[in-house]
Amino acid sequence: MSLFSSLDIELPILQAPMAGVQDSELAIAVSQAGGLGALPCAMLAPDVMTEELQRIRQGTTRPFNVNFFCHVPPAPDAAQLKRWHQALAPYYAEYGLDIEKVEPGAGRRPFDTAACDALEPFRPEVVSFHFGLPEPALVERVKGWGALVLASATTVEEALWLQARGADAIIAQGVEAGGHRGMFLSADVTTQLGTFALVPQIVSAVSVPVIAAGGIADAQGVRAAMALGATAVQAGTAFLCCPEATTSALHRQTLQSDAARHTALTNLYTGRPARGIMTRLMLELGPLGDVAPPFPLATAAIGPLRSAAETAGCSDFSPLWAGQNASTCRTQPAADVVRALAAGALP
Amino acid sequence: MSLFSSLDIELPILQAPMAGVQDSELAIAVSQAGGLGALPCAMLAPDVMTEELQRIRQGTTRPFNVNFFCHVPPAPDAAQLKRWHQALAPYYAEYGLDIEKVEPGAGRRPFDTAACDALEPFRPEVVSFHFGLPEPALVERVKGWGALVLASATTVEEALWLQARGADAIIAQGVEAGGHRGMFLSADVTTQLGTFALVPQIVSAVSVPVIAAGGIADAQGVRAAMALGATAVQAGTAFLCCPEATTSALHRQTLQSDAARHTALTNLYTGRPARGIMTRLMLELGPLGDVAPPFPLATAAIGPLRSAAETAGCSDFSPLWAGQNASTCRTQPAADVVRALAAGALP
Repeated sequence: MSLFSSLDIELPILQAPMAGVQDSELAIAVSQAGGLGALPCAMLAPDVMTEELQRIRQGTTRPFNVNFFCHVPPAPDAAQLKRWHQALAPYYAEYGLDIEKVEPGAGRRPFDTAACDALEPFRPEVVSFHFGLPEPALVERVKGWGALVLASATTVEEALWLQARGADAIIAQGVEAGGHRGMFLSADVTTQLGTFALVPQIVSAVSVPVIAAGGIADAQGVRAAMALGATAVQAGTAFLCCPEATTSALHRQTLQSDAARHTALTNLYTGRPARGIMTRLMLELGPLGDVAPPFPLATAAIGPLRSAAETAGCSDFSPLWAGQNASTCRTQPAADVVRALAAGALP
Repeated sequence: MSLFSSLDIELPILQAPMAGVQDSELAIAVSQAGGLGALPCAMLAPDVMTEELQRIRQGTTRPFNVNFFCHVPPAPDAAQLKRWHQALAPYYAEYGLDIEKVEPGAGRRPFDTAACDALEPFRPEVVSFHFGLPEPALVERVKGWGALVLASATTVEEALWLQARGADAIIAQGVEAGGHRGMFLSADVTTQLGTFALVPQIVSAVSVPVIAAGGIADAQGVRAAMALGATAVQAGTAFLCCPEATTSALHRQTLQSDAARHTALTNLYTGRPARGIMTRLMLELGPLGDVAPPFPLATAAIGPLRSAAETAGCSDFSPLWAGQNASTCRTQPAADVVRALAAGALP
């Protein structure tokens, strides 16, 4: 039943894959420290992913996790994009930018055959998915090279769905968690449970191991998650201020300020609900609503605005991803974060 | 530092005061079992409150808790009430009711001098407040007869505010909790934290004991809350199906069904955000928005609709208060619930 018996992972601490704020360096540091490092691949072009995987295999002999998204890319809707651009136009004007010149963004790639082909030579020990699972044949391919398949559930229903389709362990992602909600059976955010309610109910419902995520930032949190029946924990926010992360200076500064106490789920940055520190954009447009086009189409028009503002030292339009417990965010090596968390897993 | 050293309470288990679904009987049963029973007084007329307090003093010699609301009653706004009635009119028509005949409801009384006068002869050992604290002179009076004052915080800021104004312990109410959010410094529900994030941050911020609430339904939950630094826990949902509660048959039935997995914060039933199982009213009007008048003015027009529907065996318009973890709701004596929870507080 143990998640880790088949793998050489010392500590039941998973580093949450965090696209946009980390690369192979954080993954290597966490795996070297005895936890399970993760490489978020959703925003990586295939050649970059290959380079990053090479770096990890060179940097550590320990197991690691690669993470992919499983969304269905939406068809662009001209009327909706127009509404979105109209909502952003005043901000574009403020920075002297032209909303008419927005180009389609690189977006986010769902896991597909090409990604699986690029991944297979590296045979990563763990492959994790967000927003459901890829098609069954791809799940089988991944399991075929011996990888453990993890996937995020935000409700009991999602956990049962994932278990039935081959997930080897469930990441129970409580609503406290930073970044994208893994929700995929419903788009209704009222379905999202806090970690305290979610973990024990998923533990009761499934037979595979459960990894708790959301609001876990120190040894006490790990001990509490284990008390709720989790086999391991996944932490993200706690790693955001590590030197090995690529988190921007503005983001790091906000994470270590009182502003980090107020986060919200917002779909303004990508089109899907994700938790980040409250920004001017979120306050003025409302963090969650119909104005943003579906994931990942919102990203294209946010990019230029964010860049212009950040150049001016302003995070009004930046996705400042964070969970509801940023209290342990400090400039400290990832290995120290792993050790601090793991202290809670001792008997 | 212990919350209970000054009181003869065996077990660090508080029963959440739940107006509308319990009276003195549940409070007595919990206190007799060694926990801290609670009488919700917000909906009680002074003479009824006096009778209930007499019943408790006759029913147990153990300490108990009386709970009051501290809201500022709003001035009715005719235009807003009209919009509210218009939103409900189709449902009134469905049940052959006349929305024009809605009378102002009994509402909810905030704690005031009259309540304090009625309470003082009973000298309850614990007095708890929701939505802040009453004016300082009333807090002093309550403390003057030796009562411990508890109050609910939903953010770190609220906890600090309550401590500075004399609260002897803070109830950290995570967003998983059923019933009314205790929030009082902000009306923005994005400020509301999950128990996993809220408890440790409040424990770090204040010097008084912290009682964890929200999603705690069994021994594992109690153990986890203690691991996060809580001195005690407060559970509500776990008691809703006890024979000593006055929970309606429809409510009990829903609590023990899969429907209980989907709750939401809604302001439709009273005007303030409160967590309950999703109903037709919440789905059709949206659970949270501007359509309902401020607390407690929404209650008046809900009453007749709810009664008519419930008479027909239908809970479409009933506030089915519940937290996000109703998994332990069973028909069992309150003493058994107390014992089951307390097993998690053993070393």
